[in-house]
Parts: sequence; structure tokens; C-alpha cells
Amino acid sequence: MPERLGPPRETPLFDRVALIGIGLIGSSIARAVRHLNLARTIVAVDRDENVVARVRELGFADDATSDAAAGVTGADLVILCVPVGACGAVAAVIAKSLKPGAILSDVGSVKGSVIAQVQPHLPEDVSFVPAHPVAGTEHSGPDAGFATLFFNRWCILTPPENTPDGAVERVREFWSAMGSNVEVMTAQHHDLVLAITSHVPHLIAYNIVGTAADLETVTQSEVIKFSAGGFRDFTRIAASDPTMWRDVFLHNKEAVLEMLGRLNEDIALLARAIRWGEGDKLFDLFTRTRAIRRGIISVGQETPEPDFGRRRDGQ
Amino acid sequence: MPERLGPPRETPLFDRVALIGIGLIGSSIARAVRHLNLARTIVAVDRDENVVARVRELGFADDATSDAAAGVTGADLVILCVPVGACGAVAAVIAKSLKPGAILSDVGSVKGSVIAQVQPHLPEDVSFVPAHPVAGTEHSGPDAGFATLFFNRWCILTPPENTPDGAVERVREFWSAMGSNVEVMTAQHHDLVLAITSHVPHLIAYNIVGTAADLETVTQSEVIKFSAGGFRDFTRIAASDPTMWRDVFLHNKEAVLEMLGRLNEDIALLARAIRWGEGDKLFDLFTRTRAIRRGIISVGQETPEPDFGRRRDGQ
Repeated sequence: MPERLGPPRETPLFDRVALIGIGLIGSSIARAVRHLNLARTIVAVDRDENVVARVRELGFADDATSDAAAGVTGADLVILCVPVGACGAVAAVIAKSLKPGAILSDVGSVKGSVIAQVQPHLPEDVSFVPAHPVAGTEHSGPDAGFATLFFNRWCILTPPENTPDGAVERVREFWSAMGSNVEVMTAQHHDLVLAITSHVPHLIAYNIVGTAADLETVTQSEVIKFSAGGFRDFTRIAASDPTMWRDVFLHNKEAVLEMLGRLNEDIALLARAIRWGEGDKLFDLFTRTRAIRRGIISVGQETPEPDFGRRRDGQ
Repeated sequence: MPERLGPPRETPLFDRVALIGIGLIGSSIARAVRHLNLARTIVAVDRDENVVARVRELGFADDATSDAAAGVTGADLVILCVPVGACGAVAAVIAKSLKPGAILSDVGSVKGSVIAQVQPHLPEDVSFVPAHPVAGTEHSGPDAGFATLFFNRWCILTPPENTPDGAVERVREFWSAMGSNVEVMTAQHHDLVLAITSHVPHLIAYNIVGTAADLETVTQSEVIKFSAGGFRDFTRIAASDPTMWRDVFLHNKEAVLEMLGRLNEDIALLARAIRWGEGDKLFDLFTRTRAIRRGIISVGQETPEPDFGRRRDGQ
């Protein structure tokens, strides 16, 4: 699998990369950087000593520590891989230890809030290039990562106006090297786009799984047994990391509530069509939605295999 | 793959099985019956001559016709595999041609309405055993079927009170032979359970895909590009057969609207928690929902592989 990423670079892109927060994303970056030789040295930082110990066992970093300020010292690229709600606090802790000329980046699913949190702490001689790799699985932690996670996925950069172009280009090169397609947009637009393509889908999935679990007329055992009728699809993203997603919703409040409002208007129309037996309205929508999936498959963001290519025995 | 189904039976369960409607489900039954030797003769009926011609090319039935009355003549098991809205009309057409002692069944995702539609046409000497295999993919038509579709999935039987036990047992044996777990319940309870495990999830998926397609602030191209953030999961079931699903909603109106009401109450609470920054409420829900997925995986109704085991290159 990692062979898709191509051979290691002869010359690393960065001398020393520090990753703060070693969950699914942080550990995937570490593995990809190691595999592709994108940095001479990889430093893994996590406030949880158990994670630090596990990183040492897994061996995908050259150094592992729970001391963020020490970890970023001398790094020319520092990437915050913590829940978006923690970015400001981490920036405050590391600010004075950042090397002059260093690039600071992140991987948060919300960009406006992260910029607002980080910028007050940013030293003048450090460039901030906020980034969001649109990739992941429902699994969490340092064991869940893998080097090809970002391959053929998009990474969105949202540099504030004062970020030097050179820093943006270096971060673009970094993500391109890991197999990502890179796009630049404003933080505000990012947060709106991701509200509909990621945040609201997660909220809806969490909600439907919660509702089903709480019914008094249908048992949880029935919900579980008969979930292959569609419900189980929702449980995947509803099994994602609770801390990460709590922070996403709290930090992209306006866009999420706006998109949720749209969704509610549309569901009210659908409910009315069902109540009044307006089959044509249902049929028209159900036909239109097929085209969107065809589009996603045709740009390589989804498998064309039926049922996501799930193994048929469910094992 | 079909080897999971085990070897063909030496003695078929039925002499002549007639399947009416040769889409994903009908063609999967035909393939499984053929593979397992569950019937001496398989007759495939479809009102669309193109489908009849395709069935002849694919060769999974002994006989194929567009004449339903002729097709069911002499059959000891007749299964309606048409959209639930068409079951009454088909029953009316075939009623006089059903063999005395025959078993009539169906595969509809709604059971109360199908029973109400079919029973007025049912000859006294024919047993009606409504069935619902909780299995499928987002693909449709006679090419989409496969013999293992029902393996390790549940099939729910909802026999009306006057159905002889012997007929129920024969249908149970039929589905068990195809690898399904069989459960018997009332039609009313079935329609409630499936509303939450299948119908409402489909409605929500169709709705979110429709809403995303219609936004003026985010382009369709952006929705497609950045869909790996969660949205693409919903597009799979929103690509299901429009006619089948239109009929499901029109024929399970009360249960769907009831469950949708529950969902809306819960989403209002979540929206309020987001608006007021109540992170603990979000975190608690997001933690509870993980357990449901673990349950689904542990009973073998879902793959434990991350991301449904999707191929990583999206190809």
C-alpha cells in the first residue's frame, strides 16, 4: 500500500518537523513523513504520557515527549494535531520556543476559530499556514494512523492575509508529497463548505444513532440486528472521536446552525410530501441525488464498488 | 464467494419458484436458488421486456416471461419482488392463476401495506407469508444481484394470523438455506422497526444530499471534492432505486413521520446545545453512539475494518 506514495525523497523538505497531538492524523503524518523522508527528524509531542510511550513503541518518530515547548525547539515545521478547541492553549505554550523563520500549521476541521485562537500568540518571525486534510477514519489514537491516509484526498489551506507566499508554498509541497490535492481558500469559506460536507453529516449521524438508541417502541437489540437496512452506514461516522467533534461543533457554531436550518426546511418539505402522498416530489429528489454520487465516484473520492466494497460476511 | 453458501441441496425445497420483478432482490434470489438447488425450476417474471431479455442472457432462470399470470402457473412458491406500491396490482393479475396449495410471499420493505393490498385478492387455498430480507446495495436491476446477498443478513416474516404454520416454516427454511437469520414479528412492529433502521436513514440521506446540491453559497463541485469529510457516506443509500423508495415512504407514512418527529426533537436539542456552547451534552451523546456501532460489529452486521474497508485510492 505505501508504495502508492512513491519512493522516499533524496533530500528532505524540512529539517525538523514537530507534531503536537499524536492521534489518527498526527500519527498518519508521522508515518508518511518517515516513509517519504520529508523531514530529517520527526518529533512527536503528546500531553498524554501513555501516548508518548506508545509512540516510542511504534517507532514512527525520532523523538517523543510530553513537553510541547521542548518538542518544538529547533523545528522548522510545527503542526498542531490537537482538537480545535485546544489550539489556542497549545499556541500559548509553544510560542516562545518557536524558531525564528519556522512555519506553524495545523490540521483542524474548523479554520476561522483556529486562526482567531492562534494569531494572538504568534511571534512575528513565524509564518502561520492553517491546513485541513479532508481525510480520516472513525478510529482514533496513534495505532489508528497509516501513511496513505492523505493519498488522493484534498488538503485545504486557509492562510491569513499576512502569511508569506513562500510559507504557503512549502506547506503545499508537504501535503502534495503525501499524495494530497491542495486547494487554497478563505477560512470563512472553508468553514461553510465543511459545515455541509462534514460537520452537519456527523451531527445528523450522531443524532439518528442517539434517537434510535432511546426509542421505547423498538429495542436496541432490534436496531442493531436490522441495521443493514441503512442505519449501520450512519454509525460509522457516529463512532468518531467525541472530543474532536465536540470542539468542531462548538467552534463552527454559526455555519453548522445555518446549514442545519437549511436541512430542516428541506426535511419539512419532504415530510409534507409523504403526508400528502406526493410521490412525484419524492421520486424527483431521489433521482437527482444519484447524480451527486456519480460525481463523487468520477472524481475518485469514492469507490464504485457496491456497499462501499464491504466484505459480504460482515466479518 | 458463493462457496460460503454451502453445497447445492440434493433435493430441492420447492418444485417451481416464480419470482415477479427481477431487480437487485429478485435476481439475487434467482441466483441463490440456482446455486443452492432450492427449486427444480425457476421462473422469472418482469413486465419490462428488456429485463426479460437480459434475464435470458444472464441465464439464472429456467424460464423468463413478461406474462405474470402465465409465469405463476404451476408454481408452489411465488415471490413478489416488485416495489411495494405495485403488490396489490400484481396480486390481482396473478390471483386466478395461483396453484391450489401454493405459497405466496414478497420481499417488500413495508409489510402492513403489502398485506392490506394483497389479502383481498388471495384465493382461499393459497398461503400468504410476507417476508422482508433486510439486505441490499445501492445498485438496481438484474445485473446487480448476487447469490450471497442474503448471507448473514436477517429476513423478517410477518404472517397474518390465518397463515398456516407449515407455510411459514417452509418460507423460513427457504431463507435459512440462503444464509439468512429468520425472525417472525407482526407487520405493525416490523414497520416501526424498519422506519428507524432503514426508512428514516434513507430519507435523511436523500435529504442531506438534496440540500447540499441546492446551496447557493457552496458549489456542487466543492460538495463533491470535499465529500470525504463524511458527506459521501450518505450518498450511497441516497443512490438507491427511486421507485422502490418512493413507494416505501408512501406506504409506511405513519411510522416514518413518527420517527422523523422523534429525530427532529432530538436535533433541536443538539442545535440548542451547540448554540449555547454546552459541550458536555455533545460529548455525552458522541460517546454513547460509539457503543451502538460496537454492538453492530459484534453481531456480525458490520465490518470492523476502518472506513467500511473502502479501497484507499478511491478507485
